Amino acid sequence: MTESPNTPLLDQVPTPDELRELKPEQLRQLADELRTEMIDAVSTSGGHLGSGLGVVELTVAIHYVFNTPDDKLVWDVGHQCYPHKILTGRRDRIRTLRQGGGLSGFTKRTESEYDPFGAAHSSTSISAALGFAMANKLNDKPGRGIAVIGDGAMSAGMAYEAMNNAAQAGNRLVVILNDNDMSIAPPVGGLSAYLARMVSSSEYLGLRSLASKAVKKMSRRMHEGIRKAEEYTRGMVTGGTLFEELGFYYVGPIDGHNLDHLIPVLENVRDTSEGPVLIHVVTTKGKGYKFAEESADKYHGVPKFDVVTGEKKKSAAGPPAYQNVFGDTLAKLAETDSRICAITAAMPSGTGVDRFAQAHPERSFDVGIAEQHGVTFAAGLAAQGMRPFAAIYSTFLQRAYDQVVHDVAIQKLPVRFAIDRAGLVGADGCTHAGAFDITYLATLPNMVVMAAADEAELANMTYTAVEYDEGPIAFRYPRGNGTGVPIPETLEKLEIGKGRVVREGAKVAILSLGARLEEAKKAADTLEAKGLSTTVADMRFAKPLDEDLIAKLMREHEVVITVEEGAIGGLGAHVLTYASDEGLTDNGLKVRTMRLPDTFQDHDDPTKQYDEAGLNAPQIVDTVLKALKHNSANVEEARA
Amino acid sequence: MTESPNTPLLDQVPTPDELRELKPEQLRQLADELRTEMIDAVSTSGGHLGSGLGVVELTVAIHYVFNTPDDKLVWDVGHQCYPHKILTGRRDRIRTLRQGGGLSGFTKRTESEYDPFGAAHSSTSISAALGFAMANKLNDKPGRGIAVIGDGAMSAGMAYEAMNNAAQAGNRLVVILNDNDMSIAPPVGGLSAYLARMVSSSEYLGLRSLASKAVKKMSRRMHEGIRKAEEYTRGMVTGGTLFEELGFYYVGPIDGHNLDHLIPVLENVRDTSEGPVLIHVVTTKGKGYKFAEESADKYHGVPKFDVVTGEKKKSAAGPPAYQNVFGDTLAKLAETDSRICAITAAMPSGTGVDRFAQAHPERSFDVGIAEQHGVTFAAGLAAQGMRPFAAIYSTFLQRAYDQVVHDVAIQKLPVRFAIDRAGLVGADGCTHAGAFDITYLATLPNMVVMAAADEAELANMTYTAVEYDEGPIAFRYPRGNGTGVPIPETLEKLEIGKGRVVREGAKVAILSLGARLEEAKKAADTLEAKGLSTTVADMRFAKPLDEDLIAKLMREHEVVITVEEGAIGGLGAHVLTYASDEGLTDNGLKVRTMRLPDTFQDHDDPTKQYDEAGLNAPQIVDTVLKALKHNSANVEEARA
Repeated sequence: MTESPNTPLLDQVPTPDELRELKPEQLRQLADELRTEMIDAVSTSGGHLGSGLGVVELTVAIHYVFNTPDDKLVWDVGHQCYPHKILTGRRDRIRTLRQGGGLSGFTKRTESEYDPFGAAHSSTSISAALGFAMANKLNDKPGRGIAVIGDGAMSAGMAYEAMNNAAQAGNRLVVILNDNDMSIAPPVGGLSAYLARMVSSSEYLGLRSLASKAVKKMSRRMHEGIRKAEEYTRGMVTGGTLFEELGFYYVGPIDGHNLDHLIPVLENVRDTSEGPVLIHVVTTKGKGYKFAEESADKYHGVPKFDVVTGEKKKSAAGPPAYQNVFGDTLAKLAETDSRICAITAAMPSGTGVDRFAQAHPERSFDVGIAEQHGVTFAAGLAAQGMRPFAAIYSTFLQRAYDQVVHDVAIQKLPVRFAIDRAGLVGADGCTHAGAFDITYLATLPNMVVMAAADEAELANMTYTAVEYDEGPIAFRYPRGNGTGVPIPETLEKLEIGKGRVVREGAKVAILSLGARLEEAKKAADTLEAKGLSTTVADMRFAKPLDEDLIAKLMREHEVVITVEEGAIGGLGAHVLTYASDEGLTDNGLKVRTMRLPDTFQDHDDPTKQYDEAGLNAPQIVDTVLKALKHNSANVEEARA
Repeated sequence: MTESPNTPLLDQVPTPDELRELKPEQLRQLADELRTEMIDAVSTSGGHLGSGLGVVELTVAIHYVFNTPDDKLVWDVGHQCYPHKILTGRRDRIRTLRQGGGLSGFTKRTESEYDPFGAAHSSTSISAALGFAMANKLNDKPGRGIAVIGDGAMSAGMAYEAMNNAAQAGNRLVVILNDNDMSIAPPVGGLSAYLARMVSSSEYLGLRSLASKAVKKMSRRMHEGIRKAEEYTRGMVTGGTLFEELGFYYVGPIDGHNLDHLIPVLENVRDTSEGPVLIHVVTTKGKGYKFAEESADKYHGVPKFDVVTGEKKKSAAGPPAYQNVFGDTLAKLAETDSRICAITAAMPSGTGVDRFAQAHPERSFDVGIAEQHGVTFAAGLAAQGMRPFAAIYSTFLQRAYDQVVHDVAIQKLPVRFAIDRAGLVGADGCTHAGAFDITYLATLPNMVVMAAADEAELANMTYTAVEYDEGPIAFRYPRGNGTGVPIPETLEKLEIGKGRVVREGAKVAILSLGARLEEAKKAADTLEAKGLSTTVADMRFAKPLDEDLIAKLMREHEVVITVEEGAIGGLGAHVLTYASDEGLTDNGLKVRTMRLPDTFQDHDDPTKQYDEAGLNAPQIVDTVLKALKHNSANVEEARA
């Protein structure tokens, strides 16, 4: 670890209270020290670097000008909040970011009063800030709602819905558009092109002459405020901008790294605006750290790294990541099937769709942060005979739930859902966990739901999904790397609704769905060593259930355990429902379901998370032993 | 019933093929006959009238100009599709609309090749049309995707997401904005105000001089096409419209009832456009039927009525509708609690929020068709100390699922969800059924999920939700009228997670959640008559479960039946999971779960729907008897 950087001014600023005592001319130094501290911290913890570097000056300016925490500052997504955390009383823990027991990598209400609204998913900030603003308006309190939202996040419908409702908040709502022309991947779509045109140098020409027209819409005081702001900024584009049409006063574009521009503009908005204001701030992702600025992804998410050389700590070589197995498999299958196409919602690399896109650019669609559109767009493609794969993380597919129900399942359209990040996800914590998809998908008629036990299964499921045209089909798989099994040369088309027995036994049956299979097998080893003959089945399907297999295993075993990486309502619930309806549990069979617990688990190492969840091998063994003991106890009780 | 209207020209036009043989000057007569036929049909069937009347000319024009069904016409929401159904081979069945076995009140893929994409929820059409367009582009096929979407539907984020992606479709995408300044309720928000400005007469001034500027962006052929179109229309507003900023060519506004304007504009777009086009058409909801035009809701949804007098067939007076019990109760409670506020997503009357709004306008928020924003806005209000009620139909809450998870449940914010239209809903069919909310909500940590057995329970649950500040709480209730029980003068604060036994028995226990309680009680009567002593419990809570009550009833009864108006994964699954985990089912207890079937049920009378679902009293009795028989059979088998 390098020595901590020298930060004499920052050392005197533990909270915004001290920040506001500084003179404006000290802020540049503070921002520089803050940037240095942040780079150093992330170099030791890993995490999101580029986004935070881009908003160092903005963070300083907002806390300097506005009255946080009474003014409610809502960072959209929240992965740019590290400088904010350093400035709001959490500097002493900043090197624990994303580690078990440490600070969250996102904003979080339970961490600080300066985090009035947690985030991690995109595009929620304007709605939340509007809620704060309206509550204060109703109660005649002074505090504002301030949302800081990226240009990528603006592509989501939710942001638009919120903007469409903004006018009612009056001057209690301030939206700061942090335009860095980059979310995780470069942004796509009409809005992005529009913002680029606004920022381009040709748009700056003649602004002063335009300004007078726009200012008419504002109050006289606002007018003067803006005119003063103009002396500092390059100017103001107005007159029928998209944001104005939706009811905002628009101010910008402003250089988001120039405190001499930022401070007076924010002060003017604070002191003089009469309606909701959108401030268009242009920043550079990765600003001030040359290795980040020069990198294609601007060091969006990084492992630990060397500050001086920029060299990232390499993780040990291992089996391929699930997402890449999916992307490569689909790309290969698409070589001989022109109907296959792939859709990602602004996560080309996270989902492996980048690999598909490289081979088949014309059949690859990055729709932006727009899962709703992505799913129904896929439904349209399917209705016209294509074989679309909507590759969306489990947690983000929640954004498109109604589209899955209404546009896909009801119409029985063969959209394929490649659901990455199923189960617990480690450092990203509960906001990114894929806990609910088995439940919310398997409850839907017409839906097929698979889970991959390893990367070979994932390849086979990808192929199975290609070949399944009868209706929607989903397959889920974990974050991270596979188990190391070879990917079959010739892929197998799985029979729909059929599981497989991977180990034969007589007394105990473990029904596993998904990647806990390894733990189930380990548990079986332990149980065998204790003289308990154990069957392990990989169910493969949560829906349709392999009813024949379940009935057979229930008839032939004393204890049946289900294991899944999902919350209540999934495989276990479906197995129990089938079994009780059929009377399979009427005669003393012991069934136990193992699943994610009824809590939102904090970020930690995934193995520790699964330990906390009670889904590792020792806990499977425990559950079996307790069920058997319960059995003996009852039998004894019955005998007594 | 009146005699069928005289429609000599329409009689010769069973499908668009015959329509396209007509001369343009015949279309006015055809439209008039189509309107007359539609009014007559809806007067005998009931259904959505105003929306269809508004698009009679548009329907004729689109089918006349475009090559349906190869051009894929997608009606947004679909309740305006009655004229379309009459013109596309379904006239002979148009008087069966929304009745069991009859035509759906929405577009439906299984009904006709002219319905390429079904709908019922709002704002999906552009995404679907884009899917059709891109599939054809990839396969070098000629067909277009044509979306017809209302101005209200444009307030949903999903429509914005789709527009943001439209440019890639080239001229294969045509979006027709049907601007009638009215969805079900008057539209709200910035977009609505913007469209009103565009259409206002002051905006028309000087259009010709503006046109040349805009046309530069289009190709030369398009330019000429538009210039020709201008001779027919009042002109064209362009130059940085919101739609142009997102990548569309914008044409309009156009009088949507004037076929002499509509036909040439559509022909020009068809023949000359080079990129996606948005045609802004202004229509009048209820057009051409004076009683509809004069009515506040434009006869949006009507019962059977007399064509000559406009008089609607009154339904028999009965108990109050659930939505009104909710609205009135909340309004009353808000008189002494200034923290209570209510949010609706464009359904003020359907949710009963209109009654709250009348008493407390400043605390009532209609956010437009924007469930996502609505829920997170409510979360923001809750975070600032308010007591917000998000009143959203079960099926529409699917639109905000991620917001429920990410913004409300994870943060444990006390947002109250008033979930109307839970269970089967009758004539609106499967797209509006509230089948999944118990499952998708009860799987979430921190969530409380209640269901009301009758309107008195609903009032008590509303009060309970007001008083519960520990986290999110949801309560669901059916479509339609209550059971007739009196609403208590003094409301009861229910104990969280506690059910109530409404009838004591010894052999059979029926655990009911929600409004099937009446059927459960009837079933108990029948069972008693057969000598089977039956307990009936109203569980009230799907989460947290009343574990003590369940354990007690399981210990004291031979057969336990759960009954709920929801799909698999709900109460039954939670009861089974708890019981198996605790070993309560280890010793020969018979549990059976009754729930909605694993199909999307078509529209029909609700009682018939529940019969089909197997959730009426006779089927509860059957289930009990079968379980007991299974019991005897097993016992005999065991003895043999």
